[in-house]
Amino acid sequence: MFLDDFAYMREAIALAEEAAAAGEIPVGAVVVDRETGEILGRGRNRREQDASPTAHAEILAIEEAARRRGSWRLSGCNLYVTLEPCPMCSGAIINSRIDRVIFGAYDEKAGAVVSVQQMFRLPYNHHPRVTEGLLEEPCAAVLRSFFEQIREKA
Amino acid sequence: MFLDDFAYMREAIALAEEAAAAGEIPVGAVVVDRETGEILGRGRNRREQDASPTAHAEILAIEEAARRRGSWRLSGCNLYVTLEPCPMCSGAIINSRIDRVIFGAYDEKAGAVVSVQQMFRLPYNHHPRVTEGLLEEPCAAVLRSFFEQIREKA
Repeated sequence: MFLDDFAYMREAIALAEEAAAAGEIPVGAVVVDRETGEILGRGRNRREQDASPTAHAEILAIEEAARRRGSWRLSGCNLYVTLEPCPMCSGAIINSRIDRVIFGAYDEKAGAVVSVQQMFRLPYNHHPRVTEGLLEEPCAAVLRSFFEQIREKA
Repeated sequence: MFLDDFAYMREAIALAEEAAAAGEIPVGAVVVDRETGEILGRGRNRREQDASPTAHAEILAIEEAARRRGSWRLSGCNLYVTLEPCPMCSGAIINSRIDRVIFGAYDEKAGAVVSVQQMFRLPYNHHPRVTEGLLEEPCAAVLRSFFEQIREKA
């Protein structure tokens, strides 16, 4: 079915804002079934709260979607995320066979999709398609205002 | 303190054998505190049982170690794993600031440490050291015999 990419990215932005309110670096993600348009998984960064190095938005959204499907295989799904995925999350996207990744802001220091490397172009066994920079400005703005507030407090 | 790398890798092999007995691709991992020699986390592949794309041995060992420490930061730890880590797990190793990765068998198709890419040599913000091929033969043998048994059953 037709997927309104902007609407799903706005969901991801709302999750990023939730992370910011909890004092976490604001990143949000949703996993969407391309057939039905249903959101199967939602995640936002919880690294500090959970004291877990794996508690990134994408990992939590992917894990919830897999629980919903009862399968590790998320073929036929899109992942929307406000920030370019890091190597861990890009690898989880490959492992879960997600069809397409749509990200907002670029991560020049830790991005594994286009910025530091182009992981999906390497000869792994799955090659997700990519849409870069969707709603880049609002996605980046959430991060920018979070770091500005931290600097003001410091 | 002095760490007996072989002893820890044998622990990881025992976890891989546990995975095989449960019908999972046999990979095992342990996270060890380099100061005390204590095993902080153990993991073995549970992808099919948990129906989760993130349930790799390394991720589960890292998550257990982080819970034990009460921190996402596993500086001062080694990770021992029977198979070269995939991109997801290599990324989790970077994110958790693990000092050194010791792996047994090479993964020519999915390895992100030396085989398909050399992720730890890219300009990310942490560069774990690597020991390759420790107890390679017994680590590879567990995998080989698992796949032989599957072929016989098929």
